[in-house]
Amino acid sequence: MSPTTPFNSFVRDVPDFPKEGILFRDITPLLANAEAVEAMAQPVLALQPTHVLGLESRGFIFGSALAQKLGVGFVPARKPGKLPMATFNESYGLEYGSDALEIHTDAFKAGDRVLIVDDVMATGGTAAAAQRLVQRTGAQPLALTVFIELTSLPGREKVEGLPVFSVLRY
Amino acid sequence: MSPTTPFNSFVRDVPDFPKEGILFRDITPLLANAEAVEAMAQPVLALQPTHVLGLESRGFIFGSALAQKLGVGFVPARKPGKLPMATFNESYGLEYGSDALEIHTDAFKAGDRVLIVDDVMATGGTAAAAQRLVQRTGAQPLALTVFIELTSLPGREKVEGLPVFSVLRY
Repeated sequence: MSPTTPFNSFVRDVPDFPKEGILFRDITPLLANAEAVEAMAQPVLALQPTHVLGLESRGFIFGSALAQKLGVGFVPARKPGKLPMATFNESYGLEYGSDALEIHTDAFKAGDRVLIVDDVMATGGTAAAAQRLVQRTGAQPLALTVFIELTSLPGREKVEGLPVFSVLRY
Repeated sequence: MSPTTPFNSFVRDVPDFPKEGILFRDITPLLANAEAVEAMAQPVLALQPTHVLGLESRGFIFGSALAQKLGVGFVPARKPGKLPMATFNESYGLEYGSDALEIHTDAFKAGDRVLIVDDVMATGGTAAAAQRLVQRTGAQPLALTVFIELTSLPGREKVEGLPVFSVLRY
């Protein structure tokens, strides 16, 4: 599909945010564009996922809309300490600092087909942690879908074996 | 609409989380139920919102799915320091502690009709802050939609003039 206005005109570059030397891609104006989710959904329809796993917190926004569009359930991968029940935890290095993601141990069952969704793939560390989380439940990570892929970073190498779909590439 | 399985069977009560004395309502199993968003959408269709404002971070999940369902844009209200451009900031007292929400100053324009969405309404403080944020942009806060309303707390009094819609009440 081709959007009325190119998607990249909805992405604002913010230099030195949240830290000096980081070029932040602000996607908030894009979220007000209902066509954005359509563009993410199109290439993954054929994969027939049973669930979407959205990564805290901008991955919640794209992931939840995509789950709604695909008619499947949504599962949140959250920062440590936010989920109240027993969790799996996987840590990762970020472009700036390090962090971890958690899911409930009963979030998925064997046989579930899980589409991992985030806003941006940079180093791929977050996505690889999400992939490991899904694998620990016995479910199958199907693919990673992001709106923006930063192709100058080796993100795809980090999520080996996992197809990556992106709408915009920088 | 009447769900196949009652929605409250998807809500898990977790005592003493995140602090002693707090009964936490875990809605993560509910998110895997595609009917939940339908139940939130039904009563607000007639309001004809132009945007959904989702409150960080569980409000992102319900809000983004609802925006997708209603075919309108999504705007995130974020915790302080997360948005890269100029923001409005409104603070509020929580059931436990205090916090603030921010939106970009250009998130809405006069004439926009904004549906505020969160997972739970407890004291109503978060929702009232969101209502003030929308008003500061010149847009119109139409209503508040939450999945769970804790009716033992005076939430509705805090958001005076704003209709409140909830699916489950405790």
